[in-house]
Amino acid sequence: MTNRTAGQPPIGAQTSPAEARAQFRAGLRRPTSGLSSGHVQANLIALPSAQAFDMLLFAQRNPKSCPVLGVLEAGQLTSHSLLGGAGGDIRTDLPTYRIYRHGELVDEVSEVLGHWREDLVAFLIGCSFTFEAPLQEAGLPIAHIQQGVNVPMYRTSIACEPAGSLAGPMVVSMRPMPPHMVSDAVRISSRYPGVHGAPVHIGDPSALGIESLADPDFGDAVDVPDGWIPSFLRPVHGLGGLSARQR
Amino acid sequence: MTNRTAGQPPIGAQTSPAEARAQFRAGLRRPTSGLSSGHVQANLIALPSAQAFDMLLFAQRNPKSCPVLGVLEAGQLTSHSLLGGAGGDIRTDLPTYRIYRHGELVDEVSEVLGHWREDLVAFLIGCSFTFEAPLQEAGLPIAHIQQGVNVPMYRTSIACEPAGSLAGPMVVSMRPMPPHMVSDAVRISSRYPGVHGAPVHIGDPSALGIESLADPDFGDAVDVPDGWIPSFLRPVHGLGGLSARQR
Repeated sequence: MTNRTAGQPPIGAQTSPAEARAQFRAGLRRPTSGLSSGHVQANLIALPSAQAFDMLLFAQRNPKSCPVLGVLEAGQLTSHSLLGGAGGDIRTDLPTYRIYRHGELVDEVSEVLGHWREDLVAFLIGCSFTFEAPLQEAGLPIAHIQQGVNVPMYRTSIACEPAGSLAGPMVVSMRPMPPHMVSDAVRISSRYPGVHGAPVHIGDPSALGIESLADPDFGDAVDVPDGWIPSFLRPVHGLGGLSARQR
Repeated sequence: MTNRTAGQPPIGAQTSPAEARAQFRAGLRRPTSGLSSGHVQANLIALPSAQAFDMLLFAQRNPKSCPVLGVLEAGQLTSHSLLGGAGGDIRTDLPTYRIYRHGELVDEVSEVLGHWREDLVAFLIGCSFTFEAPLQEAGLPIAHIQQGVNVPMYRTSIACEPAGSLAGPMVVSMRPMPPHMVSDAVRISSRYPGVHGAPVHIGDPSALGIESLADPDFGDAVDVPDGWIPSFLRPVHGLGGLSARQR
């Protein structure tokens, strides 16, 4: 994980969203966990308009997995309310873009100016990184921040409610907690329903069909200290968890 | 307002949703205020699939005006989870349907079997009638139930957030409350965000651009006892409040 671009100051909790976006636009690639404390973080899912209704319906039916913070309509490349301030561009201001064709990951790039289509509709989905700062302020440890890696994410055996052509398993992120802090973690995260809210499950990975915490499907594994409890939060779909449904 | 169909028992707070739907299917036409206490009530908006994304996006951007309880995809005429039990049919089980063409009300009928199109997507929007029973149980009066009429509804001067081809003013229902009960009415209705939640405004119709409480745009006027406060709840759009946007 890189923390700065050449000639730029390192970015962190105190970095403004505009400054973070400027560095991403300049080519910085890193997860956004721990950045711009106090601001809502979002993930991007962009789909051709022919699939846009199915995507929005999938989100409506799975609001904890896919909390929609906002939508940029086809042809709209920025939004004052969603990207803040002037000059934002949804095609360049994110640290990394994954490109899927027919459900297969085909590329991972730092901007998508050459890939963007006029009929793409952009969905901004709430990200659980948003409530990591409030968790930390309450004295709760965030393992992946402490260990300097991305949060571990796992496909589960729980199916989301399908919508039109879209179906997929629930995907969860995992944050280990000391047992005496689990209640506080639930209480605090539950105040943020727009960014996944309270954990979907606490304690037993196998109950979600997760065979090994050491082998996440996305992100990085974290060390789970002896006696700590893995708590599972619903992360965004579209990181490969969401696929076209056979009808 | 009719309260029964020929040869059928009158329906009221204790009537099951299935029985109420059966009577509506048999031709009973009346508002659903006061019926089937303890169950969620919904309004229907059905649109061709070409407009379905705009409708769902309009709802996402105006969640208090248009809280989506569920969506029947094109070709789907019933839903166990949304209409309950077997035999439900979205084309016949509602008391009244209003048919709009190009934004104009063209007919009002008790079933739409002959009008339904295969590409219609049906949105069920939460209805504030749902929390009238909890309000009454707390001792709060519901004027339109006591006076035996439909709830009064008004177009306001507040614009909803547009989405694609759709735009329109916020439309509100009005329930007068004695001053000492307004706080309880807010507290109780706020527990039901899926059916519009807390009032958008309390006390001054002119602040919403409503000139006369005696002339509602939809529903019926109610007598407001001296000293009572009009409280405004956000009702459903699609009752004529929602129209195609000139772009």
